[in-house]
Amino acid sequence: MSTSSSLNIEKPTLVINKKRIIANISRMEEKSWKSDVRFRPHFKTHQSATIGEWFRDFGIRTITVSSVDMAKYFAGYRWNDIMIAFPINVRQIDGINELAKAISLHLLVEEFEVAKNLDKLLYYPVQIWIKIDVGYNRTGIDYTDTEAVIRAAETIKGSKRMTLNGILTHAGHSYNLRSRDSVTQLYAEQVNRMNFVKSRLVNAGFSPIEISIGDTPCCSVVERFDGIDEVRPGNFVFYDATQLAIGSCTEDDIALACACPVVAKHKSRLEIILYGGAVHLSKDVLIDSNGTKVYGRIAVPVDNGWGKILQDLYVSALSQEHGIVKTDAETFGRISVGDIMYVIPVHSCLTADLHRRYITTEGDIVESGKY
Amino acid sequence: MSTSSSLNIEKPTLVINKKRIIANISRMEEKSWKSDVRFRPHFKTHQSATIGEWFRDFGIRTITVSSVDMAKYFAGYRWNDIMIAFPINVRQIDGINELAKAISLHLLVEEFEVAKNLDKLLYYPVQIWIKIDVGYNRTGIDYTDTEAVIRAAETIKGSKRMTLNGILTHAGHSYNLRSRDSVTQLYAEQVNRMNFVKSRLVNAGFSPIEISIGDTPCCSVVERFDGIDEVRPGNFVFYDATQLAIGSCTEDDIALACACPVVAKHKSRLEIILYGGAVHLSKDVLIDSNGTKVYGRIAVPVDNGWGKILQDLYVSALSQEHGIVKTDAETFGRISVGDIMYVIPVHSCLTADLHRRYITTEGDIVESGKY
Repeated sequence: MSTSSSLNIEKPTLVINKKRIIANISRMEEKSWKSDVRFRPHFKTHQSATIGEWFRDFGIRTITVSSVDMAKYFAGYRWNDIMIAFPINVRQIDGINELAKAISLHLLVEEFEVAKNLDKLLYYPVQIWIKIDVGYNRTGIDYTDTEAVIRAAETIKGSKRMTLNGILTHAGHSYNLRSRDSVTQLYAEQVNRMNFVKSRLVNAGFSPIEISIGDTPCCSVVERFDGIDEVRPGNFVFYDATQLAIGSCTEDDIALACACPVVAKHKSRLEIILYGGAVHLSKDVLIDSNGTKVYGRIAVPVDNGWGKILQDLYVSALSQEHGIVKTDAETFGRISVGDIMYVIPVHSCLTADLHRRYITTEGDIVESGKY
Repeated sequence: MSTSSSLNIEKPTLVINKKRIIANISRMEEKSWKSDVRFRPHFKTHQSATIGEWFRDFGIRTITVSSVDMAKYFAGYRWNDIMIAFPINVRQIDGINELAKAISLHLLVEEFEVAKNLDKLLYYPVQIWIKIDVGYNRTGIDYTDTEAVIRAAETIKGSKRMTLNGILTHAGHSYNLRSRDSVTQLYAEQVNRMNFVKSRLVNAGFSPIEISIGDTPCCSVVERFDGIDEVRPGNFVFYDATQLAIGSCTEDDIALACACPVVAKHKSRLEIILYGGAVHLSKDVLIDSNGTKVYGRIAVPVDNGWGKILQDLYVSALSQEHGIVKTDAETFGRISVGDIMYVIPVHSCLTADLHRRYITTEGDIVESGKY
């Protein structure tokens, strides 16, 4: 395994491939444009003003974030149409009001009580989306609970500061699927369920009602965005080992890897020890088709980045700073202490969140805005 | 559940109980002193110069860290006897030399080839410990492999810059135990195995050979540190839900919790949604005695901190920013959106690593040195 890469890696470092990122953005933007839906990418994945500019170059002006702090960060970089796709945290009402004064702020409501409370605390107008649960069972009003949806809509309509934009969902259960066909089916199911809720709202006199969906698998797999008005994928900017297992992307679309120095080898167990642990990769785990726990896949280093993913190697365990790579005899023999191995993360959002900067395969530093 | 705490929590915040931290340090320091062993606490858990001073107040001058960067950080705060308890990363040789010039630097070697290579790259003297594997199977020379141990010792002895201090282990498999008796047995086993290695080295003419051990469960459970020369526990400063399950600590020793705002409730599933996810807690998981996956335990808020751990509640799932708490009907009814719940982390080291500061139960901000 070569150590000749011109990237000077001293310690676990996130390397991004800008060309692939641009291609991933371009593909999603074009599909959105052709489908006549608004593209509101989720910036929680990269959390970087610089990468944000790469989106802006495609004419994108509407974004999604997952916290008030992240909204403040991007608002500071001239993003002025931001959705916080997270249940409203009333303890941050000062930050919410500050943002609502400055930009077009979109918020989620899933309970009429929260909407009622928010109405009393808001000083400036905000755009509201009712969060619907189409089967993920994390947050949102169950799509069959028309009464609760109507009650939330009435509360929003009765408010001076809140404007009802529509309904929103995140079909996060798509992450458990392992074929493009099943993802396509889930897209159809979530769109049907969202249109069912929309029809109930329209019948009750609430109109227009837009539909916003979010998950990277559905957004990546379907050819057209029919039956909806907005898409909010985030992970697609980098993709990762989970998206590869789902079928959301090919190996050549993955745009982020963690370069890790090899610090030890254990011949009797055919294990390679990486400087690269839970604090660099996150402990998110992928169960592969054999039931094996995978904490990352391994790619060979090539000039300025990584090449093919090695099929028989994987990160089998992580402690705080160590990663253990299971290998085969042939690969084991080719690797030396001091070499670099590239880990394709299980979940690029969580891995990226652990670092404050990226280095591109061309060697440019890209700061992230975490904190 | 009360929201009357005088700590003004807006978002997921690490709260530490300084009295408990001081008591945890005091107990370990006293046991070390009575056992006549060196106490070299691992600072990777808290990563904070301020908390470091609380150790210094007990006369502690020798510490352990897990990276070159962490060593540099603490060296900048007058710590001048530091062990980097991680396999040497030769790609950071400049940082290693910089540290070796300034302080008494202790490093780990587990392969004679690495020692040979290091010898060529070092400009200043360093203290070396041979890493032994007593059964954890992560890193280190297997304790039965006398040949490899002797070969490493010879390489170190033949080096101009390296001084052999002794042998070191981390019995991380103690984290899988669930009773104080089994931990006590593991202590005896690891001490026997280390003394076996020591006797082989002494017989081969290497002397004196010190023995250093590290894991928090063994260091917490045994009454005296017999048969060794140094202890390096780290986690004990905060403890966590895993240590509680092992029996390393009582509930009243746990000194860190993550205060999380409640942002939604789902009555049909008796679930509470916290603003507090994988980026605040880490995805480390504890399998409880029923086989349930637990991502955190829940404690009630009291004035300035948290009280008892609630037995039937637990964090059942985490996404990037959301935590889902399984609850019972009675507790569910008492909790409102906007309340604070305290999460006792599964693994306090990983949780602490995700934050840049703590707030004490008295309301003081304590910065951490992460980055």
